[in-house]
Amino acid sequence: MYYGEKRVEDPIRWAMVGGGKGSQIGYIHRSSALRDFNFELVAGAFDIDPERGKAFGKELHVSEDRCYPDYKTMFAEEAKREDGIQAVSVATPNGTHYEITKAALEAGLHVVCEKPLCFTTEQAEELEALAAGKNKVVGVTYGYAGHQMIEEARQIIAEGKLGDIRIVNMQFSHGFHNVAVETTTASTKWRVDPKVAGPSYVLGDVGTHPLYLSEVMLPEMKIKRLLCSRQSFVGSRAPLEDNAMTIMEYDNGAVGYLWSSCVNCGSMHGQKIRVIGEKASLEWWDERPNQLTFEVQGESVKVLERGMDYLAPSAMVDDRIGGGHPEGLFEAWSNLYSRFARAMEAAEKGKSVDFWYPNVHAGVEGVRWVENCVRSADSGAVWVDYE
Amino acid sequence: MYYGEKRVEDPIRWAMVGGGKGSQIGYIHRSSALRDFNFELVAGAFDIDPERGKAFGKELHVSEDRCYPDYKTMFAEEAKREDGIQAVSVATPNGTHYEITKAALEAGLHVVCEKPLCFTTEQAEELEALAAGKNKVVGVTYGYAGHQMIEEARQIIAEGKLGDIRIVNMQFSHGFHNVAVETTTASTKWRVDPKVAGPSYVLGDVGTHPLYLSEVMLPEMKIKRLLCSRQSFVGSRAPLEDNAMTIMEYDNGAVGYLWSSCVNCGSMHGQKIRVIGEKASLEWWDERPNQLTFEVQGESVKVLERGMDYLAPSAMVDDRIGGGHPEGLFEAWSNLYSRFARAMEAAEKGKSVDFWYPNVHAGVEGVRWVENCVRSADSGAVWVDYE
Amino acid sequence: MYYGEKRVEDPIRWAMVGGGKGSQIGYIHRSSALRDFNFELVAGAFDIDPERGKAFGKELHVSEDRCYPDYKTMFAEEAKREDGIQAVSVATPNGTHYEITKAALEAGLHVVCEKPLCFTTEQAEELEALAAGKNKVVGVTYGYAGHQMIEEARQIIAEGKLGDIRIVNMQFSHGFHNVAVETTTASTKWRVDPKVAGPSYVLGDVGTHPLYLSEVMLPEMKIKRLLCSRQSFVGSRAPLEDNAMTIMEYDNGAVGYLWSSCVNCGSMHGQKIRVIGEKASLEWWDERPNQLTFEVQGESVKVLERGMDYLAPSAMVDDRIGGGHPEGLFEAWSNLYSRFARAMEAAEKGKSVDFWYPNVHAGVEGVRWVENCVRSADSGAVWVDYE
Amino acid sequence: MYYGEKRVEDPIRWAMVGGGKGSQIGYIHRSSALRDFNFELVAGAFDIDPERGKAFGKELHVSEDRCYPDYKTMFAEEAKREDGIQAVSVATPNGTHYEITKAALEAGLHVVCEKPLCFTTEQAEELEALAAGKNKVVGVTYGYAGHQMIEEARQIIAEGKLGDIRIVNMQFSHGFHNVAVETTTASTKWRVDPKVAGPSYVLGDVGTHPLYLSEVMLPEMKIKRLLCSRQSFVGSRAPLEDNAMTIMEYDNGAVGYLWSSCVNCGSMHGQKIRVIGEKASLEWWDERPNQLTFEVQGESVKVLERGMDYLAPSAMVDDRIGGGHPEGLFEAWSNLYSRFARAMEAAEKGKSVDFWYPNVHAGVEGVRWVENCVRSADSGAVWVDYE
Ligand SMILES: NC(=O)c1ccc[n+]([C@@H]2O[C@H](COP(=O)([O-])OP(=O)(O)OC[C@H]3O[C@@H](n4cnc5c(N)ncnc54)[C@H](O)[C@@H]3O)[C@@H](O)[C@H]2O)c1
Ligand SMILES: NC(=O)c1ccc[n+]([C@@H]2O[C@H](COP(=O)([O-])OP(=O)(O)OC[C@H]3O[C@@H](n4cnc5c(N)ncnc54)[C@H](O)[C@@H]3O)[C@@H](O)[C@H]2O)c1
Ligand SMILES: NC(=O)c1ccc[n+]([C@@H]2O[C@H](COP(=O)([O-])OP(=O)(O)OC[C@H]3O[C@@H](n4cnc5c(N)ncnc54)[C@H](O)[C@@H]3O)[C@@H](O)[C@H]2O)c1
Ligand SMILES: NC(=O)c1ccc[n+]([C@@H]2O[C@H](COP(=O)([O-])OP(=O)(O)OC[C@H]3O[C@@H](n4cnc5c(N)ncnc54)[C@H](O)[C@@H]3O)[C@@H](O)[C@H]2O)c1
Repeated sequence: MYYGEKRVEDPIRWAMVGGGKGSQIGYIHRSSALRDFNFELVAGAFDIDPERGKAFGKELHVSEDRCYPDYKTMFAEEAKREDGIQAVSVATPNGTHYEITKAALEAGLHVVCEKPLCFTTEQAEELEALAAGKNKVVGVTYGYAGHQMIEEARQIIAEGKLGDIRIVNMQFSHGFHNVAVETTTASTKWRVDPKVAGPSYVLGDVGTHPLYLSEVMLPEMKIKRLLCSRQSFVGSRAPLEDNAMTIMEYDNGAVGYLWSSCVNCGSMHGQKIRVIGEKASLEWWDERPNQLTFEVQGESVKVLERGMDYLAPSAMVDDRIGGGHPEGLFEAWSNLYSRFARAMEAAEKGKSVDFWYPNVHAGVEGVRWVENCVRSADSGAVWVDYE
Repeated sequence: MYYGEKRVEDPIRWAMVGGGKGSQIGYIHRSSALRDFNFELVAGAFDIDPERGKAFGKELHVSEDRCYPDYKTMFAEEAKREDGIQAVSVATPNGTHYEITKAALEAGLHVVCEKPLCFTTEQAEELEALAAGKNKVVGVTYGYAGHQMIEEARQIIAEGKLGDIRIVNMQFSHGFHNVAVETTTASTKWRVDPKVAGPSYVLGDVGTHPLYLSEVMLPEMKIKRLLCSRQSFVGSRAPLEDNAMTIMEYDNGAVGYLWSSCVNCGSMHGQKIRVIGEKASLEWWDERPNQLTFEVQGESVKVLERGMDYLAPSAMVDDRIGGGHPEGLFEAWSNLYSRFARAMEAAEKGKSVDFWYPNVHAGVEGVRWVENCVRSADSGAVWVDYE
Repeated sequence: MYYGEKRVEDPIRWAMVGGGKGSQIGYIHRSSALRDFNFELVAGAFDIDPERGKAFGKELHVSEDRCYPDYKTMFAEEAKREDGIQAVSVATPNGTHYEITKAALEAGLHVVCEKPLCFTTEQAEELEALAAGKNKVVGVTYGYAGHQMIEEARQIIAEGKLGDIRIVNMQFSHGFHNVAVETTTASTKWRVDPKVAGPSYVLGDVGTHPLYLSEVMLPEMKIKRLLCSRQSFVGSRAPLEDNAMTIMEYDNGAVGYLWSSCVNCGSMHGQKIRVIGEKASLEWWDERPNQLTFEVQGESVKVLERGMDYLAPSAMVDDRIGGGHPEGLFEAWSNLYSRFARAMEAAEKGKSVDFWYPNVHAGVEGVRWVENCVRSADSGAVWVDYE
Repeated sequence: MYYGEKRVEDPIRWAMVGGGKGSQIGYIHRSSALRDFNFELVAGAFDIDPERGKAFGKELHVSEDRCYPDYKTMFAEEAKREDGIQAVSVATPNGTHYEITKAALEAGLHVVCEKPLCFTTEQAEELEALAAGKNKVVGVTYGYAGHQMIEEARQIIAEGKLGDIRIVNMQFSHGFHNVAVETTTASTKWRVDPKVAGPSYVLGDVGTHPLYLSEVMLPEMKIKRLLCSRQSFVGSRAPLEDNAMTIMEYDNGAVGYLWSSCVNCGSMHGQKIRVIGEKASLEWWDERPNQLTFEVQGESVKVLERGMDYLAPSAMVDDRIGGGHPEGLFEAWSNLYSRFARAMEAAEKGKSVDFWYPNVHAGVEGVRWVENCVRSADSGAVWVDYE
């Protein structure tokens, strides 16, 4: 149980690049970072439009002189200050992540970067190496992973309650882009433009989320080969896909399926993961994140609830309010940001941490998966060895 | 609304082959056929063990002399009687369907045959031709299709409320055979023996059910090519699979996915179908058959209920009790058996019928699909053109 | 597991009074009685309109001369036959139940009577005594009680898994009569007419159903006093109520609540019962009858499913198809009719039965409860001692 | 859509009384107030134990000299500072609310007080008058009311989509205190002690929450009389109840029911409200707060989702993240605290506000309802005119 105590000695001085007014994901970064005194927002280059960014910074209680026109200026100016920023979150369209993250690391900053980390595995591994070299943290906001029932699932599986894992069934398939909303919505427009979005749309935009959940729950399992079929039902989106089906084979003989979509009419999110073992299954749905279904073959179905004493201690440690009260996505993200802060503080002190979080390597793996999927799809939806 | 009126002039004199005491599916055949005076049970070769079959026949109120030791004797003896049987249902293990159905047609009987109709498309088309030649009905018990909400879905789609169809997402994935229950359960034992079961286990045993639902809902759509990956998680089942994933491409550009499994721990049935169009989606789950979810993108989710005035007339005609009262699988089957009876009567009178039902062609298509899946799977899970 | 074997030596010769074409509840009587060779329909006075009744009888495969113009003629004529009826089901509007049931018993018939058995406890006890004197069975169709999960609940409670019972929360509150549909619907018209319906509308029409479920689950508990508040939201229905709230105190210190309504807009049935003990709770909803929720305080919620091996043997004995396949209300009624048949056969042989079913005493208790509720309501919604 | 902009010119200087480490409800106050720069935490008397309070204050980033041993000292000391607190939240056991709130108002502070505001209507009205006299805001944390779907329900009802309101069905019935956990849990111990808890346990502790939801949704409806039956299933809790059933009559002829319980084994919260009108019903469940069920009689059930364009503008204004992403209780509280802040700022400027929030009058009404319930219950569960 958690009461809001600081989890770092001193709040980390923090800025944002992107996440401006009107952006989809900027607010949850701020709300999560600023919760519980782990970070304080002292600077920002919040918007591609400097004026708009400055005006917004003021509304966010950031002093005017630290509302910068762009990230380069910010990194340069802040570096000059005694009380300059120590960490930055990057919540801009995909195409800029690589360069901003690289620049931030080179400026000696810890980074929280939106997914995807970049466009190619090569770039991703470069960033991973750079972070290691600089001894800096790079967190990647696979935010759903912060839900406490994900940790509970991880523990149940680790204890062997499912037996050998056989099948991983995943989906993140919403319906919001069933028609060409990109003609009127800016945040969809860039998502279907390969120059800004990268080599994929839904695979990277939504598919990597449940993929990362599977990595958290099943840390030992490795993909051996996969096959991906992708479609552009709204034709103008080609070559980027608005629907994709990926079949995977893991090295332990298990198989997986991951359905990524933005044309699944009427579905709000449709992010689900079901892990099936020899003895039992676990299922989790991101729209009901406080529940986890645990089904032992031959027994009645059990529905576990967040915040209850029967859960694993590590699934209780981030509990912010007693069971029954619904927590939401903001708590999931806050749980991650709190780990980011502790990892950053530990890095500064030359210590390592004993908890998992979506780190730079998770970022690499997401990019790798998309790359393999695209390679398969673009070769005619054939099997490719996982590289 | 239906009050139990006979739907044929005279009840059809009817027998069963198989479906004996202890069989899984025999009872629902009887319960559905005998409901509402459309059939009367006058003979049977209910069991592979003649004595057991005879004893059971008596419990079913069948006169002793018409409880036969095997189907050949039955067809021969009944043919001699003035009041001999007119139709027979075949509820024996798969390996016998072809020969029994063929013999029945040749004996001038209408047939209701369990799925799969036989093992190869060639055999299936032979039976189709034979039935046509003899002017006899062959019904195939894709029983779930008789649920009224399936007809409602068909009508909604026919009216264009989904727009162009893009994705068909299907599954029938239960968990009852997660371990080698075949060592102790007879009805599983034959299912994993290729000689009795045929070229597949779960693809044919469960996968063809939602496939047929998709054929009912989407009569125009044709599979162009498919890819199937199958596994035997219980190793001794190889070459037969206990899990399979099939990706399909349709000729209109739509894609489909069908997950067949008997190792999905904790799942009761897990038979679901979701049809996604440009504008809206429909979803149905066989464990909650009285509901149908209709999701127009951008609107609140609608849950339709069986028996309500807002449904299509053709979805109301089989309504046996007002909305709110749950109907179950027995009503679905009864609805089909009532159509079988009417089709048989019409055939006798040289008339055609204006309603759909799972007929011999549906049987052919099920066999074809399994054959294509197996061909793909056994070639290394590659794409095969649909033949 | 049940395979359709006869449960009586010889099918009982059976007739119906009422339940004609267009009636709400006639069909489920026939469908349930005629299933599995326990009864055969040989006669009927199906309709208040003799011609319509005769025409309908023919559609039901009843020989014309045994389609009678009224029940009196039927009882008289059938008495003269060697093969005359042995049992009759009464599915007419409430106001006729008493006289028809009485006449049937006097004619030496077993009876299945719709609820309410009659209008007053006095009448009900008279019928109970008459049935005892004649050694005849009177079954009352509290049909939901036949669902197998009700028996499972009964067993769980009997085993003490809930501990002392504290609260019984019940409702049957649908929305179909939110406006004065009685102006156009015959079956609602008589329900709001005290002469035909009796002293209450929803209390008797729907409220007695969950009440009986509570009697089955909690055979030891007795109501000590109750308080009922009833309303006529559609004003023209007064003095009959279309909504009622009843609070009960039981002799063991437990309390109960039962909400009866036909103006609960949008609710299909809304029949639920939740039994809360010191240690655990059970909940059942008639629209999802194959599930039973079992909640032990401090543990994850368990959802039990019909047809599964972990259930009590007595909850499995009526299983007609494996778990996962949805059974519906028709199976629940069939389970009861099968018990009625066995009870009738036993009565003929002077034997007693070792299973429960909604018998004449259940009928008495339903009438008594309504009487007490009305007495309370009409005294200003005050507490009344249960009489 | 909301992006985290400040909603007041300058963050309000804020302190807490109670809500210390280990308390149930302290954290959500802080997390909600401190979000989005509307308040800043500058002082506190967080704990009945001054040392513990001080230590905790440090963990909350409060400077040591402003961590006070008790509220009196805090009010006195802060009054001396230029930058002294402007508002205080009270999250202590019930028995202290009256005196602390009164002292705070007298010290010229705005107050956010936990429910119940105090023990008697007389006290409550005194506080209401005092707040008016001082022109100070008193917010009362009926936190669930901040969920956006509550506002949506309010708007749907205001537009007349339900027609005349007939029935309000409410419950807040959890199971956490099925046995005497108070012997080991401090926060339960005081709840069953009349001196600290006041005249009721569950009526005030949980029942007033859905009651307030009904006041928000149905601002015009007034209770005319009510009847309450309360029980102490854990005997040692008497005279305080652990279960209560309240029937209400409203002045427009509607009726209501509210079930309050802490012995409803296995239920997490069980807070539900269903408002039934002549034409349609609305239902909301606090464990799935992002959904609202809207059922028009005769149409398919509609499930509305938070964050969707089809909602009322006033239900969208507090949207913090797009539809599909689950918001939780923290957002509901944050929405209220943001209104508290704006109301406080407006009060300072002598302006009024155009939005509702749980204000001091809501506090009065909660106390009044409990008082009436207790009066009824203690007179033998009889009807009492609402005073
Ligand atoms: N983790 C998640 O769940 C999640 C959810 C949504 C989006 N995302 C990711 O977040 C990123 C942003 O997505 P979004 O939907 O919020 O996009 P958006 O288009 O809604 O917002 C982008 C914001 O970045 C600003 N911006 C653009 N270029 C900039 C630059 N060079 N410098 C500074 N600011 C710049 C824009 O002004 C805008 O405020 C994407 O990479 C996306 O994949 C992640
Ligand atoms: N439509 C469906 O939903 C569904 C469901 C289950 C089974 N099935 C199909 O029904 C068929 C039977 O399956 P089951 O699970 O009931 O099998 P089962 O093993 O439980 O029962 C088979 C029955 O057939 C009898 N039998 C075997 N060979 C016979 C013969 N030569 N002559 C007469 N009787 C014979 C056996 O004695 C037994 O009574 C299979 O083809 C299966 O695929 C369909
Ligand atoms: N157990 C249940 O779940 C359930 C459900 C619905 C109705 N019921 C009960 O069943 C009874 C019938 O209800 P309903 O809704 O079917 O009514 P209905 O009005 O729909 O049908 C009544 C039928 O009885 C016939 N009838 C009327 N008087 C007759 C007479 N004197 N002789 C012969 N036939 C006569 C009518 O012609 C009609 O066919 C009622 O007592 C009702 O309470 C029980
Ligand atoms: N709005 C809601 O949903 C909700 C939920 C839970 C509790 N509550 C209310 O919140 C209040 C607190 O309940 P709780 O469950 O958190 O109680 P708790 O016993 O868990 O915590 C009470 C806290 O108050 C402190 N305290 C006690 N007396 C104090 C004093 N005189 N000065 C300063 N600190 C003092 C204690 O040290 C402790 O930190 C109660 O009035 C309760 O009704 C409201």
